[in-house]
Amino acid sequence: MKASQFLISTLKEAPADAEIASHQLMTRAGMIKKLGAGIYNYMPMGLRVIRKVEAIVREEMNRAGAIEVTMPVVQPAEFWQETGRFDKMGAELLRIQDRHSRDFVIQPTSEEVVTDIARQEFKSYKQLPKNLYQIQTKFRDERRPRFGLMRGREFIMKDAYSFDKDRDAAQISYQTMRAAYKRIFDRFGLQYRAVRADSGAIGGDLSEEFQVIAATGEDAIVYCPNSDYAANIEKAESLAPTQPRAAAAQAMAKTATPGKSTCADVAELLNLPLANTVKSLVLATDEANDKGDILSSQVWLLLLRGDHDMNEIKVGKVEGLANFRFATVSEIEEHFGCQPGYLGPIGLKKPVKLVVDRDVAVMADWVCGANEADYHLTGVNWGRDLPEPTLVADLRNVVAGDLSPDGQGELAIERGIEIGHVFYLGTKYSKAMKATFLAENGKPSEFEMGCYGIGVTRLPAAAVEQNHDERGIIWPDAIAPFTVVICPIGMDRSEAVKTAAEKLHADLLAAGVDVILDDRGERPGAMLADWELIGVPHRVVLGDRGLQEGMVEYQQRRETAATKVPVEEVFSFITSRLA
Amino acid sequence: MKASQFLISTLKEAPADAEIASHQLMTRAGMIKKLGAGIYNYMPMGLRVIRKVEAIVREEMNRAGAIEVTMPVVQPAEFWQETGRFDKMGAELLRIQDRHSRDFVIQPTSEEVVTDIARQEFKSYKQLPKNLYQIQTKFRDERRPRFGLMRGREFIMKDAYSFDKDRDAAQISYQTMRAAYKRIFDRFGLQYRAVRADSGAIGGDLSEEFQVIAATGEDAIVYCPNSDYAANIEKAESLAPTQPRAAAAQAMAKTATPGKSTCADVAELLNLPLANTVKSLVLATDEANDKGDILSSQVWLLLLRGDHDMNEIKVGKVEGLANFRFATVSEIEEHFGCQPGYLGPIGLKKPVKLVVDRDVAVMADWVCGANEADYHLTGVNWGRDLPEPTLVADLRNVVAGDLSPDGQGELAIERGIEIGHVFYLGTKYSKAMKATFLAENGKPSEFEMGCYGIGVTRLPAAAVEQNHDERGIIWPDAIAPFTVVICPIGMDRSEAVKTAAEKLHADLLAAGVDVILDDRGERPGAMLADWELIGVPHRVVLGDRGLQEGMVEYQQRRETAATKVPVEEVFSFITSRLA
Repeated sequence: MKASQFLISTLKEAPADAEIASHQLMTRAGMIKKLGAGIYNYMPMGLRVIRKVEAIVREEMNRAGAIEVTMPVVQPAEFWQETGRFDKMGAELLRIQDRHSRDFVIQPTSEEVVTDIARQEFKSYKQLPKNLYQIQTKFRDERRPRFGLMRGREFIMKDAYSFDKDRDAAQISYQTMRAAYKRIFDRFGLQYRAVRADSGAIGGDLSEEFQVIAATGEDAIVYCPNSDYAANIEKAESLAPTQPRAAAAQAMAKTATPGKSTCADVAELLNLPLANTVKSLVLATDEANDKGDILSSQVWLLLLRGDHDMNEIKVGKVEGLANFRFATVSEIEEHFGCQPGYLGPIGLKKPVKLVVDRDVAVMADWVCGANEADYHLTGVNWGRDLPEPTLVADLRNVVAGDLSPDGQGELAIERGIEIGHVFYLGTKYSKAMKATFLAENGKPSEFEMGCYGIGVTRLPAAAVEQNHDERGIIWPDAIAPFTVVICPIGMDRSEAVKTAAEKLHADLLAAGVDVILDDRGERPGAMLADWELIGVPHRVVLGDRGLQEGMVEYQQRRETAATKVPVEEVFSFITSRLA
Repeated sequence: MKASQFLISTLKEAPADAEIASHQLMTRAGMIKKLGAGIYNYMPMGLRVIRKVEAIVREEMNRAGAIEVTMPVVQPAEFWQETGRFDKMGAELLRIQDRHSRDFVIQPTSEEVVTDIARQEFKSYKQLPKNLYQIQTKFRDERRPRFGLMRGREFIMKDAYSFDKDRDAAQISYQTMRAAYKRIFDRFGLQYRAVRADSGAIGGDLSEEFQVIAATGEDAIVYCPNSDYAANIEKAESLAPTQPRAAAAQAMAKTATPGKSTCADVAELLNLPLANTVKSLVLATDEANDKGDILSSQVWLLLLRGDHDMNEIKVGKVEGLANFRFATVSEIEEHFGCQPGYLGPIGLKKPVKLVVDRDVAVMADWVCGANEADYHLTGVNWGRDLPEPTLVADLRNVVAGDLSPDGQGELAIERGIEIGHVFYLGTKYSKAMKATFLAENGKPSEFEMGCYGIGVTRLPAAAVEQNHDERGIIWPDAIAPFTVVICPIGMDRSEAVKTAAEKLHADLLAAGVDVILDDRGERPGAMLADWELIGVPHRVVLGDRGLQEGMVEYQQRRETAATKVPVEEVFSFITSRLA
């Protein structure tokens, strides 16, 4: 490819709304161009990256035995009504009507349509397992689209769906996909982790996210540096403390803490470690009848250590708390006789259900609110000042330094960007859509399903978040828009430069290398800056002076200085670097 | 590929709504599956064809210097408002609103968005010419979607847009694309014609359709068997007759023709050739003010030979008739004093503007309505019974046997399916969107544009219309879902069959041949019928009996009998057939 025949369009400044590096750099490098909120043109330079991502994904999906289909972007609502998602999903599901006022959706995923295919096509267990996938345009009407391709509204996703005869077979399909995902992400050349994720009501451990490690990632990833344990923060278990509770050393006392309504403020005032304080969180659950009228409500008090954060997923798994909400101020006043900020488990006006985090259950001489404004209790002890806790559970997010659940040391936390997800669905969709096959016993049986997504247009953005510097993007070879760029200095003035550049270009092309020759005639500084911004990983600079000595300059995008290479060896030098 | 790992799903019966062969056969062969009116899943077997079409199109577009981009499916309405198409286009433009009630369209094409890209990216004439293309999902909300992929609502189209500095350069871009289209359609292995089409208000001859020849085509194609002249019926010129008008031989007479209101009925009653009759078509044009109120109307009478059909495009080009409509019955009665069916140019109540087809102008002793119910005039002659015509024009569709405009003989007519269109747009969009670049003279100048479409999902349907028989589809090699199918008979019983089949499969795969081995264990009859329906062009059947003699059977899908080939030669036999 010659640059004069391509569309290269770099910008000095990033757009004002670009908050993160990938959005800034991909826009400046001319890879994407915003058309509307969360809607982008994939420009030629960016589309080359996307096509390489697609090709790797397709190749590995095919290798894993998945079969490619394409399901429509515009889908009749009737399928989405069968599972109830047409009504249940929020405004992010874009609902439209055609000229005859019939309802449609723009697909955000395709569980319904693929399940419809399965119930028509897979009549017998003999046809199973099957895995159908597509690489297709999706739309989610995000309330606040931002971060460029990271959280766009229109995007390209690879979504695969497995159909199996039973749960054991579904687990094999899941593991096959998981292995394919590892191959895919290995090939991308990115640092990533497969982290355990919550599988919701379905249970089991068959839900993992593939997270690209990046300091700007939206997700917290918990991992053990000594083992392969990794989970997202929602999922990561905090082990029960192993040390016994210390004996009570202090008497309980009421202490004035005027205006100190947070654990941190109280700890500072009392000159105590934050870990000696206990925070009180008040939740509520409602009983409703079929019409949705609330018949009665139950108030719950959760106790967590002052330095710990509540984990909503874990709280939701406590029996009775599946559909919890935060209590209202009036509910709090009714039960505690006090406004939030000074709450505690002692001296309630009306009884509540108490749930105690594992770490709180082993505390001695702790501090909590006194249920009286501007007062806290100190020296509180279980079994003496209040009964021993009966409902103890894991309610909190893990923190760095917690013990790894696999016993291999302490946990660490880093940030990640979710670019893939493998998920065991069970019979959620097949049951709702009456999608059955004839099992070996001759009876209709619902498909056991799994779903497997990769954000094809999100992936380049994640790659940039992980791989960039102050000069621009640093693409891994596998998904770079071009693998090699040839930058001739003064090509229009020097026949030697022109000849050498064109020969190297032709030789690399013939060897199947994805190379671009910058024949635009830009000034050297601007030309080199463009390619550093665009992030092509391998660069050759040819100039008259160097060629007089028979040398050209090679530089990998991560390197800080160029290497002089004899012009007659540069082809083999580059190809050996790529091999 | 092994069939057991693929999705093969053939049907004995076509769906009731499938009216044409391609819809019936592609559904029966499991290539497409209807999800809603005009909305289809592209099933694995069909998607393979579509991907091959895409690959050929992409390769030739790149070779021609076009640059690939992807423009969003969901496009903000503001761009469509700039050109007025948001309001002007009919209900086939699917308009939607997002969660914030902002207007969007689902793209049916992308002139607006690509022009927006050009006005931002191409600042100087030095950056031109440029041609941007995409292969992308489109949506047209057809009132009556039908014919499967032929006239669907959601479809895939390759749309390219050229930007040039002036009209001469635009013509070069047009010719470059035209040449690329010829290469593309040659590679598809289909019989097609590039036919001249009408370029509307822009004028000139830079509009051609690429039509796949098929008896079931919706379009009539006019061509000269002795030359490369070809045009669609709207465009094809009918030459002025070269023979002089015969002298009048009859006196004009009024003849009773009770109940005979068509030329055909009158010709039969009077025992005259239909070509001796003249039909009267009454049109009207309106003068309106800026608000659209009609100020005055003009009635026109068009005379065509009884055996000729009016061509609305040609009529619209007669000065004054650009926005013609058919006259109302009351307008007809007011001017002719008679109901339709017995109208003619003689004896009007009020004057009309007369436009006479070239062929009518040279008629003598002709028959027309008498402007009195149940009566016609015979023996009518120009210059005697009514004045010589002053406004003579080409108003009719050509018919087979007309002289070719290039003087190379007589025209013939066949049916075609439009699968591509190259079109010079001029400055229609760049003017509306103020899309300019700096010209060599330093002044802003509007881009000269062209647009170039190929119906990627329509093409396979057109290929099937052209290439099928009573057993199923006959794919050209280049776009077949698989090039070769290996059908082993009794693979589960015979080790020899299994070994030979798997060896041939592996050898062909290694040679890069797109081969499928049918290891499903179907009965031989059902297996062979499946592959004849699917239409794989090259088939090898291996059976125990043949292998004992060292022979296998090869059959091209068009052939009526198999060829025996020694098993050790079958690999080279097939690869030589493919070369």
